[in-house]
Amino acid sequence: MTRQKERVCIIGSGNWGSSVAKIIGENVQKHADMFEPIVNQWVFEEQYQGRPLTEVINTTHENPKYLPGIRLADTIHAEPDLIKACQDCTVLVFVLPHQFVRGVCDDLAGSIKPSVKAISLVKGLEIKPDRITLFSEEIGRRLQIDQVAALSGANIADEVARENFCESTIGSRSEAAGQLFYHLFDTPYFRVNVIPDYVGVELCGALKNVVAMAAGISDGLDYGSNTKAALIRLGLMEMRKFGQTFFGGVEDATFFESCGVADLITTCSGGRNRKVAEAFARTGKPIDVLEKELLNGQKLQGSLTAVEIHHFLAPRGMTKEFPLFDTVYRIIYEGAPLDTVVKL
Amino acid sequence: MTRQKERVCIIGSGNWGSSVAKIIGENVQKHADMFEPIVNQWVFEEQYQGRPLTEVINTTHENPKYLPGIRLADTIHAEPDLIKACQDCTVLVFVLPHQFVRGVCDDLAGSIKPSVKAISLVKGLEIKPDRITLFSEEIGRRLQIDQVAALSGANIADEVARENFCESTIGSRSEAAGQLFYHLFDTPYFRVNVIPDYVGVELCGALKNVVAMAAGISDGLDYGSNTKAALIRLGLMEMRKFGQTFFGGVEDATFFESCGVADLITTCSGGRNRKVAEAFARTGKPIDVLEKELLNGQKLQGSLTAVEIHHFLAPRGMTKEFPLFDTVYRIIYEGAPLDTVVKL
Repeated sequence: MTRQKERVCIIGSGNWGSSVAKIIGENVQKHADMFEPIVNQWVFEEQYQGRPLTEVINTTHENPKYLPGIRLADTIHAEPDLIKACQDCTVLVFVLPHQFVRGVCDDLAGSIKPSVKAISLVKGLEIKPDRITLFSEEIGRRLQIDQVAALSGANIADEVARENFCESTIGSRSEAAGQLFYHLFDTPYFRVNVIPDYVGVELCGALKNVVAMAAGISDGLDYGSNTKAALIRLGLMEMRKFGQTFFGGVEDATFFESCGVADLITTCSGGRNRKVAEAFARTGKPIDVLEKELLNGQKLQGSLTAVEIHHFLAPRGMTKEFPLFDTVYRIIYEGAPLDTVVKL
Repeated sequence: MTRQKERVCIIGSGNWGSSVAKIIGENVQKHADMFEPIVNQWVFEEQYQGRPLTEVINTTHENPKYLPGIRLADTIHAEPDLIKACQDCTVLVFVLPHQFVRGVCDDLAGSIKPSVKAISLVKGLEIKPDRITLFSEEIGRRLQIDQVAALSGANIADEVARENFCESTIGSRSEAAGQLFYHLFDTPYFRVNVIPDYVGVELCGALKNVVAMAAGISDGLDYGSNTKAALIRLGLMEMRKFGQTFFGGVEDATFFESCGVADLITTCSGGRNRKVAEAFARTGKPIDVLEKELLNGQKLQGSLTAVEIHHFLAPRGMTKEFPLFDTVYRIIYEGAPLDTVVKL
């Protein structure tokens, strides 16, 4: 008796989605007993040098727009129609900007079987004054599926695509689904640890960006490496406290994983949040101006998360219990002096 | 009834010893109820611009040789005679290179009361094939005193002296001694956490240097920040495992302290161990040649510790259980290819 093979669809095709497509394309061949060889990738259709991007990907086996120079497996099939891309798939990999998650889920709802397993590589959280929504849970709710895992780690997409060694963390409530995703993602250059604490995995991926803002402000003040290391450590402690205060099962051990300390280190050394915060400290220009100048008008995740955290903590009278998060908010939005970043 | 005030002697006057003298000079004034105002500092006598260094310190209130431009409190009294410096002192602060610790203790033995409290800021460990010696324990044994704490953290001396915000960790078995040292060291720019796990504090301070060698090799190979973050994380895990395997009371929580993750981050971003290892990877020159070229012939701590760990683990058949430590050793001393650093 052979068990039914899993059929995978990757939903998303940006820089990170394309890097992930490279890994998955390799792994479905390596684990041919577990996975169907053909992997669909839903690609938001656009024109690339006069041709549809999906056609370019399917003929050149490369996504020249978002990951130029990196060859994908021939068995990655780019598909512009979302429903068609996901049809008969048993595994869905969500790797798209967070603002598109709801729309995509609503388009898919009804055509997805309850047994489908999904994994969220979506960055960020949705923090509203009344509640915090994890994207894994949102995907599960909208598609009415039980098993949604999350993946996060110190994974700058271009470096992963170049096969530079790194690690990543998968949080999965179900051990069986965790093992499935392990085989889908783990390679000798992309080492995956599976842990049960999916909440911690997703929280780390969002909250780290606020810590990176603090690190950037410190850099902008030329405070040196002791200070920056102290802020990173204090940030890690606040991430942990936030998880433990507002979510039940967040484990200390999660912060030792790639999604915790390693991703925090990467984000606080390079990364756009750190960079924009440094420019903020050096120039005094408001964040929205810097977003225009440095990010082509894209919104910065860290400052957005800092606001959301503030509006979540303030009605609970708890801003002072998270002094680093609070200070970043006050510096960026309330004109608090820059050096309050070290007066926690 | 007033309790007897503590009388402090700082043993050592290098770059770190002088930065610490600055802090202690401020704190004995601030906590005048606990400490005598005069603090002795044992200074290894040498000539500075034709005058004895102790005389220069006592007249200019600055150590121009090891910490130029930083004013020390007037109450810091430099003293070239070790026995005299420590006479009637109830608190000894050891802050000198590890190779001098034994000699100093042997000179002091017999003139120190059993009730004296000491703290070791000595960097490193002594790892012999048959046992690992912590300097706090060695000081306690040689002076026959019970209470020896340890201090370690992300504390580059010059940045501390410039009052850039940072944190540090004190490990003290005794809570009372821990509180005493807290008041001696904690300032708004040098925040101290006291924990009971003095073993973990000292271990972190030594083992981090081996991890920094791995980080430096990764930098020399231009592997990027994902890889470096992964190596730092794997190194942290090996530091933890080493502590838990060979010492009873090493706590997970210690690695979240400044002496753990924060110091590791600082050491792996700047720091001589990282720098020499990067040069090793780029040039292929042996470590002893690079020590001459880059460190004026001073011995590098990280490579020394890697050798010592190897000679400790090998007879126990345990080198493979610490793949990162082992790989650093094999790359530096056995000609293993550089890229084995990511083939753990």
